[in-house]
Amino acid sequence: MFVIGERINGMFKNVRAAIEQGDRTVIQDVARNQIEAGANALDVNVGPAKVDPLKALFWLVDTISEVTDIPLSIDNPKYDIQKEIIPRLGSRAIINSCKADPDALDRYVALAAENGAGLVALTIDKQGVPSDVEKRVELGALIGAKAMEGGLPMDKLYIDPIILPVNVAPQQPQNVLETLRQLRMLSDPPPHLNLGLSNLSQNCANRQLINRIYLVMAVTAGLDAAIMDPLDKDLMDAMITAELLLEKVIYCDSFLNAYRMANRTANVA
Amino acid sequence: MFVIGERINGMFKNVRAAIEQGDRTVIQDVARNQIEAGANALDVNVGPAKVDPLKALFWLVDTISEVTDIPLSIDNPKYDIQKEIIPRLGSRAIINSCKADPDALDRYVALAAENGAGLVALTIDKQGVPSDVEKRVELGALIGAKAMEGGLPMDKLYIDPIILPVNVAPQQPQNVLETLRQLRMLSDPPPHLNLGLSNLSQNCANRQLINRIYLVMAVTAGLDAAIMDPLDKDLMDAMITAELLLEKVIYCDSFLNAYRMANRTANVA
Repeated sequence: MFVIGERINGMFKNVRAAIEQGDRTVIQDVARNQIEAGANALDVNVGPAKVDPLKALFWLVDTISEVTDIPLSIDNPKYDIQKEIIPRLGSRAIINSCKADPDALDRYVALAAENGAGLVALTIDKQGVPSDVEKRVELGALIGAKAMEGGLPMDKLYIDPIILPVNVAPQQPQNVLETLRQLRMLSDPPPHLNLGLSNLSQNCANRQLINRIYLVMAVTAGLDAAIMDPLDKDLMDAMITAELLLEKVIYCDSFLNAYRMANRTANVA
Repeated sequence: MFVIGERINGMFKNVRAAIEQGDRTVIQDVARNQIEAGANALDVNVGPAKVDPLKALFWLVDTISEVTDIPLSIDNPKYDIQKEIIPRLGSRAIINSCKADPDALDRYVALAAENGAGLVALTIDKQGVPSDVEKRVELGALIGAKAMEGGLPMDKLYIDPIILPVNVAPQQPQNVLETLRQLRMLSDPPPHLNLGLSNLSQNCANRQLINRIYLVMAVTAGLDAAIMDPLDKDLMDAMITAELLLEKVIYCDSFLNAYRMANRTANVA
């Protein structure tokens, strides 16, 4: 699993304050903690911080890059912002995100391909998030076709079928599982399949439990990337154990520690 | 999910001692505790207790029946024992288990059908546990065909694709998941799909974690029954949450308690 740490986001109070006040230590600590806990990339989102978003993103990227060179997922819906910041990161960048609109895909795929960057593309179109599996898969296929057409390799593409909160859209979790099963067979090699996991449990009780169980279900259905909280140890344990049971990790009595050690060696500068 | 509580088994020291000494209180407490924790049926296994197995099973069944009338899974590999005890329980009985041998299936299906009992049939033949998906599915199909032929309704049949310990057979967990996905489509309505969950983690570290994560994966793949430990609260929470995310349970902030209350009302005498 490719874990994109979600914690550098202005929706968290300490991060918001750090962005507004230019406090590098807080940001660098959050970056380091996530990497040590198993993040393979870091999502970077200004969120509701009252700042110029482009300036803040440049500052965040430079601040984080002082302590790590793992990939950064630039989490902003505006193309004009992405096109400024992505060249700074080049192949370390993941554009997060664009919608499954043909024109938008052409522009975003070109931006990603030109910079050797990754691209998270959501199965949303102008009608919004599809309520059924068929439309999600159709949009996933459109994304895959546009990526091939634009020369973006499948290992740089992250199709995200969008998970909505289970308390407002109870039929969506299973639709997303079926979408994952179908999109995994879209091409050979397949694109990465990604979710913004925490959205599933917005305003729910037992948030960590719900996120944890669904991550296991989604990994079983083919998910191989997620924007999630690596600081949630139980969530990481669940993920590692699911990978063990899919034989992506070899059993030893200390398989949890062995995974963490190997991952840490790969990602900690 | 149909939870068959695994705790009345002579391999547990307190149960073994109770069977050998004829201590009804211990057995009845273990029965009650499992039902209150969410068991929908109870497995009954004499295990290594030094007693006459048939006499012990009669005693166990009578002792348990004083406190509950939920189904009992008679866990013994001998047909001669099953044929004595099953008529005592009639439609409350689940025969656990027979192998996928044509002659054995004919006898066991007849015994189940005559008594209105359930039957757990394992995808094992004379060559042992299959190492691949294809053979497991083939044996599952044989079991399904024999049940239909013998007049055993699908809702009384529990096909069990056998889970082996992950530390000795690391490729089997994923094979069993794929077998579940395929057997779910065997007939309409499909048979129940069952596992003896705890076998997965025999002699492993982190046993509860491994069992819990695999239960979620197996439920996602179509499992709808398991012989498992209902006294493991985290395991039950994981199962309930998986059912929520498959929309078999409706979300409310207290969905864990709501499930337990509903289940308890149904099963506690």
